[in-house]
Amino acid sequence: MRVKAVLFDAYGTLFDVHSVVALAESFFPGRGAALSQAWRGRQLEYTWLRTLSGRYRDFWQVTGDALSWACESLALPLSADRHAQLLDAYLRLEPFPENVDVLSRLHGKGMILGTLSNGTMAMLESALASAGMRDLVTHVLSVDSVGRYKTDAAAYALGPAAVGAPVGEIGFVSSNCWDAIGATWFGYRTFWVNRANAPLDRLDVKPGGTGSTLRDLLQFFT
Amino acid sequence: MRVKAVLFDAYGTLFDVHSVVALAESFFPGRGAALSQAWRGRQLEYTWLRTLSGRYRDFWQVTGDALSWACESLALPLSADRHAQLLDAYLRLEPFPENVDVLSRLHGKGMILGTLSNGTMAMLESALASAGMRDLVTHVLSVDSVGRYKTDAAAYALGPAAVGAPVGEIGFVSSNCWDAIGATWFGYRTFWVNRANAPLDRLDVKPGGTGSTLRDLLQFFT
Repeated sequence: MRVKAVLFDAYGTLFDVHSVVALAESFFPGRGAALSQAWRGRQLEYTWLRTLSGRYRDFWQVTGDALSWACESLALPLSADRHAQLLDAYLRLEPFPENVDVLSRLHGKGMILGTLSNGTMAMLESALASAGMRDLVTHVLSVDSVGRYKTDAAAYALGPAAVGAPVGEIGFVSSNCWDAIGATWFGYRTFWVNRANAPLDRLDVKPGGTGSTLRDLLQFFT
Repeated sequence: MRVKAVLFDAYGTLFDVHSVVALAESFFPGRGAALSQAWRGRQLEYTWLRTLSGRYRDFWQVTGDALSWACESLALPLSADRHAQLLDAYLRLEPFPENVDVLSRLHGKGMILGTLSNGTMAMLESALASAGMRDLVTHVLSVDSVGRYKTDAAAYALGPAAVGAPVGEIGFVSSNCWDAIGATWFGYRTFWVNRANAPLDRLDVKPGGTGSTLRDLLQFFT
C-alpha cells in the first residue's frame, strides 16, 4: 500500500539492542546473552509501569536502572565504569545488516522516513549517526517530548502530528510485536518484522503485514 | 505501624501462581516450570499494554491469551482440553504455606483485611474459597470494576473507596515488587514479600517494609 511516510521503531527494529552482548560477554564470560535479555526485559517493564503510574523518567535513566537491576538479578558485579560502558553502547548500537540498504531504497523512491522511539533525542541522534542512517530519516520523534512511553496514545500521536497526515496514511514498522500491535490499535498501517519467529501476541488484533527482515516491508509499503 | 486495614495482592502474594507447575509438568515433562514462567510474564505484559492503550479485557481472558502465547513460544502443543485444565487451575491456586495462619492472626487482632487484585470477582471468590481464606477477608476488590489493571491509579483507588479511609492509613502487601512500588507511588503503607530474594526494582522509591514471607508483616502492621 502507498503511505505518506513510514515511521520505524528504533530499539530492536532499526538497532539491535542485543549488539551489546559482545561487550557484556567480555565483562561476564558466558553470561552476556542472559544479561542482555534480562536488561532489555526490565527496561520495557519500567517504561510500561512508569507510564501507567505517571512517573516518567527518560529512557537513558530507565535503561541504566534496568541494567543495574539485571546485573544484581544475575549476581554479576557491576562497577561504575562497566555500567557506563554498557550504557554508552546504546549510543552506537549496530543496525541489523539489511537496514541501511532498505532505508536507502525507500528514501530513493521518495518515501518520507522517520523514527518514533522511546529513546531520548540525544540517544536517537547518536545511534542514527553511528549507524549511517541520519541522512535518510526526516522525522526523529522521541516520546520524551510527551513524557509517556509506547503504547500510550500520546506517544503514537507524535507521528501524525509530525507528518501532517492522518494516522491511517502513515506506516509504522516494529520488530517488537507489542509495539506493532499498539500502533495498530492507534490506527497506523503496521508491519511487524518478526526476526525471531516469535508467536503473535494475543491482543485481539494483528499487524497489517509481517516479515522476517526489514527487506520484507519493501513490497508492503511501495 | 497501625493501619485501618490491610489489602493483599492475590496472584503471587496470597496464591502461588506457580502452583500450576505440577499440572503443566504432567502435560509437558521437563517444561512445566518454563511454561509457568513464560505464562506469568506474558500475562503481566498484557495487563500493562492493554491498560496503556485502553484495551481492557478481563483477567480470565488475558490469562488464557498469555497461556496460548507461552505454549506456542515454547513449541508445546496445547489442546483445548489442556488449555481449559491449566486455566481452571487458576480457580484453585495453592496459597503459600504460612498465608492462612497469618491472615487468621491479623483477623484475630481485629484487623480489616481485603484483596485488591487484577483477577475477576469470579476468579477471586473461587481462589479465596478454595484456599480457606474467604471468611478472613472483608473486601474483595477487583480491577474489573474499573477496567484498568495495576499499576493504574484507578485500580489502586479501589482500596480507599472500599475501606473508607485515606490511602495513607491503609496497608498494601504484594510479593510483586512492581506492585508494591505502584502502591507506594499511590500512597499506601506498603510491604513487599520478597519470597524469591529478588533485587529491588529501580523505580525511585521502595516499599515501606520488606520481608521474605507473609509472616514478616505481622510485626510491621501491628
